[in-house]
Amino acid sequence: MQNLDEHTITESVLATFQHTQNPRLKTILESLVRHLHGFAREVRLTEDEWSAGIDFLTRTGHMSMGGRQEFILLSDVLGLTMLMESINHHAQGEATENSVLGPFFVQGRPAVPNGGDISGGLPGTPLYFAAEVRDVHGTPIAGASVDIWQSDDDGFYDVQREGLQEAVLRGQFTTDAQGRFWMWSIVPAAYPIPYDGPVGQLLTASERPYMRPAHVHVLVQAPGFERLTTMLFLEGDPHLDNDPVFGVKDSLVKVLEQAPAGTAPDGTPRETPYSVLTHTFKLTPTGGAS
Amino acid sequence: MQNLDEHTITESVLATFQHTQNPRLKTILESLVRHLHGFAREVRLTEDEWSAGIDFLTRTGHMSMGGRQEFILLSDVLGLTMLMESINHHAQGEATENSVLGPFFVQGRPAVPNGGDISGGLPGTPLYFAAEVRDVHGTPIAGASVDIWQSDDDGFYDVQREGLQEAVLRGQFTTDAQGRFWMWSIVPAAYPIPYDGPVGQLLTASERPYMRPAHVHVLVQAPGFERLTTMLFLEGDPHLDNDPVFGVKDSLVKVLEQAPAGTAPDGTPRETPYSVLTHTFKLTPTGGAS
Repeated sequence: MQNLDEHTITESVLATFQHTQNPRLKTILESLVRHLHGFAREVRLTEDEWSAGIDFLTRTGHMSMGGRQEFILLSDVLGLTMLMESINHHAQGEATENSVLGPFFVQGRPAVPNGGDISGGLPGTPLYFAAEVRDVHGTPIAGASVDIWQSDDDGFYDVQREGLQEAVLRGQFTTDAQGRFWMWSIVPAAYPIPYDGPVGQLLTASERPYMRPAHVHVLVQAPGFERLTTMLFLEGDPHLDNDPVFGVKDSLVKVLEQAPAGTAPDGTPRETPYSVLTHTFKLTPTGGAS
Repeated sequence: MQNLDEHTITESVLATFQHTQNPRLKTILESLVRHLHGFAREVRLTEDEWSAGIDFLTRTGHMSMGGRQEFILLSDVLGLTMLMESINHHAQGEATENSVLGPFFVQGRPAVPNGGDISGGLPGTPLYFAAEVRDVHGTPIAGASVDIWQSDDDGFYDVQREGLQEAVLRGQFTTDAQGRFWMWSIVPAAYPIPYDGPVGQLLTASERPYMRPAHVHVLVQAPGFERLTTMLFLEGDPHLDNDPVFGVKDSLVKVLEQAPAGTAPDGTPRETPYSVLTHTFKLTPTGGAS
């Protein structure tokens, strides 16, 4: 333990975890120390840089209050969140690929019947979203729970709007006997990730873009299947190739169809044109595809 | 940027730093991402573990307020602080080895004349500390600034004591023409690092010891020489081999001599026995030893 230099200190720190009872915690702490020390040795970390790092983490902690979680945002822009998702969810075969959950999912969202309108009367281009939930062999899954949440026409989520009395642009749907769900909304807009904190300073200093391409979040859950956390992006969005949180996959980019005024597919009379988004979500059975 | 999996995402994140103007920032961010991703891949980080990490960092940030800096403590117990010190300060040849500054150094400490008593009347075993500051060739350095700070007989620093009106057990001395400084104090006690926060939880979960061996902090500064941040430990301390912040070096462990009542080396009459600590600090010239 004594007389440690930059080459011997790592093994000495690792030795302090020898009595850790939880084997998983031991594994994680040992790997963390090895990589943390490897980083410091590789860049020859100076005292000023170490101090700047301590200050950055402290300010990130202070900004993580109430509805804001700056450490999740940091994980997102460093690609750690999407890496963690990729490690844990391998879309097998035909299964729908996953993406990040993001910071705007909330518990206690309203249940909405199929055909319901979640726009809350907010302005924007009307959107008809009709989709199916199936297994990897194409068999419809009835009774699946489908959470939808999205930004408004200005790029904001309801939780970012002060004074809103109830949830808008989010809802929990249930698939019918044919595995279908459908709803009315508005077309989401691209938006900047919150840039008034330490993570914004990091992006500014490294001259990285802030804008997330427009998307609709989808969380699908059904007994016997792995939970699917994903999102659908819109073809033609200028930010698709520069998503600051690395969530875009080709299979999740959809072309918005344009429909004229008239009777919609669900029988609704529409007085104006509207956009149509369709998709088939395919779930992986729990324990892997057979 | 699209269709990233756990093997391709790292290169894509690195590519986002291509426009970073500051080359040093670019180097640090690239290395940080490589090691962070390497860690997540190596341990196969789960969603629950990722969430626990976000929560740990958030609580560490919230505890870093006022006089408490939990992120520095985290860096200390993970060995990062001592590693950073080792990277930046190689004691060359005869030069005194360095150690961590720790969280209890404060600016605005009182100047104390040689022979002064910094104990503030606190109870404990009297200590006479007499030392010399020299260059690596043995030449005395006159006019060097020497900061001393230490814990009391209960293991607390003055900044941890509520209601104290002035600094005690700390002071700034200046070496005389022969490079000497001397002072009166009390023998410091071993103490636990603050364990009521996330770092304490980490030590508990990994069953690591909390106690720092007793020590006197010394910071020596003189024009033309590298700043020396170090500390002296006491031979026989039961915690020397388990310092939770990895700061102990053999060359910094000193035997406390015991002196009887009578006239002390500085001419002071002492009515009780006292302990004596001596040391010669040798400084590295700026730019390296010649």
